[in-house]
Amino acid sequence: MRYLDYAATTPVDPRVFEKMAPYFTKLFANPSSAHPCARAAREAVKASRKKLAALIGADDPDEIIFTSGASESNNLAIKGVAECYDEPVHFITSSFEHKAALNAAMQLKEWGHKVTLIRPDEGGVVRVKDVEAAIRPNTVLCSIMHVNNELGTIQPIDEISRLCKRRGVLFHTDATQSFGKMPIRATGDIDMMSLSAHKFYGPKGIGALYCAKDVPLVCQISGGSQENGVRAGTTNVPGIVGMAEAAQLACSSIREEYERLTKLQDAFVDIIKNEVPMAYMQGDPNRKVPWICNIAFYGVEGAKVRDMLGERDFCVSRSSACAKSGQRSHVLDAIGAHDELATAAVRYSFGRFTEEKDVIDAAKETACIVTELRG
Amino acid sequence: MRYLDYAATTPVDPRVFEKMAPYFTKLFANPSSAHPCARAAREAVKASRKKLAALIGADDPDEIIFTSGASESNNLAIKGVAECYDEPVHFITSSFEHKAALNAAMQLKEWGHKVTLIRPDEGGVVRVKDVEAAIRPNTVLCSIMHVNNELGTIQPIDEISRLCKRRGVLFHTDATQSFGKMPIRATGDIDMMSLSAHKFYGPKGIGALYCAKDVPLVCQISGGSQENGVRAGTTNVPGIVGMAEAAQLACSSIREEYERLTKLQDAFVDIIKNEVPMAYMQGDPNRKVPWICNIAFYGVEGAKVRDMLGERDFCVSRSSACAKSGQRSHVLDAIGAHDELATAAVRYSFGRFTEEKDVIDAAKETACIVTELRG
Repeated sequence: MRYLDYAATTPVDPRVFEKMAPYFTKLFANPSSAHPCARAAREAVKASRKKLAALIGADDPDEIIFTSGASESNNLAIKGVAECYDEPVHFITSSFEHKAALNAAMQLKEWGHKVTLIRPDEGGVVRVKDVEAAIRPNTVLCSIMHVNNELGTIQPIDEISRLCKRRGVLFHTDATQSFGKMPIRATGDIDMMSLSAHKFYGPKGIGALYCAKDVPLVCQISGGSQENGVRAGTTNVPGIVGMAEAAQLACSSIREEYERLTKLQDAFVDIIKNEVPMAYMQGDPNRKVPWICNIAFYGVEGAKVRDMLGERDFCVSRSSACAKSGQRSHVLDAIGAHDELATAAVRYSFGRFTEEKDVIDAAKETACIVTELRG
Repeated sequence: MRYLDYAATTPVDPRVFEKMAPYFTKLFANPSSAHPCARAAREAVKASRKKLAALIGADDPDEIIFTSGASESNNLAIKGVAECYDEPVHFITSSFEHKAALNAAMQLKEWGHKVTLIRPDEGGVVRVKDVEAAIRPNTVLCSIMHVNNELGTIQPIDEISRLCKRRGVLFHTDATQSFGKMPIRATGDIDMMSLSAHKFYGPKGIGALYCAKDVPLVCQISGGSQENGVRAGTTNVPGIVGMAEAAQLACSSIREEYERLTKLQDAFVDIIKNEVPMAYMQGDPNRKVPWICNIAFYGVEGAKVRDMLGERDFCVSRSSACAKSGQRSHVLDAIGAHDELATAAVRYSFGRFTEEKDVIDAAKETACIVTELRG
């Protein structure tokens, strides 16, 4: 089986699993307990928090709030800020965010707040000037993802966060598809950042929200005083240990891996371009990451291509795994892809264990399948 | 090291860990993906949901909503019902619930709803007639825990849920401390039930909310369409597999284990009674589970006893691990324990790997320590 769906999830790296394992059965105590059994668990969490904080350039380990994943982190960032306000305020996000950010923002409308959805350009990139034009006197938060999960396009979060800082608007970014794969640091201009361990070879069920110390946030899961009172629930020790280890491994080889994946992408795209007429690469190729390739094959159904690739042992997706199956992609809608393109789209995504042979074979197999379907 | 803090958390049973392990590194795909790699993960989740549903007597596996743990489940149940109402409505809970339920209920007040906190009797049990008296025409939900986490007292949830059903009030119970240890089934009268895997030898970071099909609930973590749209976020496959396996193991030996723990408790309490004068058992001994013993040693500080036991390799707690260290126990406040008793309390909790020798030694060591401290 050739797995080409790394944007949906990644396997836990065996080195990560090895680090996590003792915390299930042996060093299992509740780190919030005050007895000696709890010490190892507490220290492991402390060290992991420190490690992760350092990797994203946070000033203080307490700026890391562990959550169950990026969906929860996005909800905490967006609803957590909104709940600080009794009066209606204004939020900005884009129309092609991950559903977790988008639906959290929709929830704010139910609460009486205003939300502006910025539409990205046709290449799949949000324009800084559109964000600037959307800012109102009562805008409190702007949330723009770093890398789009269906297109792989990179958003200009440096410029947008700078703009927001200047205008007194908090800035949150969903870095689920970028952290550990390209440099991103919580500098002075990024106030909040969502992370998900299972996208960078860590376990599922654990994520984090970086939240700068001065950002007010209302707890969304109320209860115990874990995570400085901002997120209750027994600390997921093996998850946290795994997440920090995975982050360290990923961040230690960002440049080499980026270069390697760029070569794989180029090899893949070359074959598609040469062997499949009317294959349209969605998302501006000059402003995207190499590990996500969203391609529409005119005149064929993407779902059919995916299924036939599946029968031949290649695992790819059509869009976000979080979307309802059969649902139209809101991302492709946002970039104005017409029906035929949207229906024809297939997402290939590459990662740590993808080899050149995998992408070459996948491209060739795709060419055969598309030819077959068109014929 | 003798671990006597099973109410705070339990180790993952090695049999559970073995079942979970392949889903980290090998069968790792996102179950929401539509390709062949995802099949094994999807089927494992489906089977686990079915298994857990059967164990709690749910009619339909879709009545199980997987969450990150009981804190999230309690929040989802309480806030999820509240968000269905635009107008202010009324909620009932008790003043000695776990902080996750209590603080979620406090949040409702911020939203403009009314909340009645029922005070348990001195023995640590909520009176059915107090719940009955608290019901108002606009009461929508009553949430009462099954077993109190600090005292071990069993709440009359059968009677309370029956009363609620009769009066058209939804009933939720936090079964974190009871599920897998004593019989509890989601019958027609219990509408929602919170579960946490790490309390019954499953992993941390995974839990569930049983929610009967006809109960309206507003999603608290918005995003993808996982868990029938009621809880977004990439499905935590290893966590879910582990939780279901742990539930099955636990439920398969409830009676034997209850009897075994009763004997351990009796042996433990006998020694304390005989060797420690003025040791006061908190929580009515005739209405509590055998695996939680909360004992106040007049005239000594509970924290000191816990620390000295720790130095001698016995791990016990003072109260909930979720409480802030040094914070006064709201549970002991609720049962009207005066200052001296509240300060003197120590919680011993037993479980699957506790042996008779452990409880006997712990009792004897406690006797020595208390004598030492008093002298």
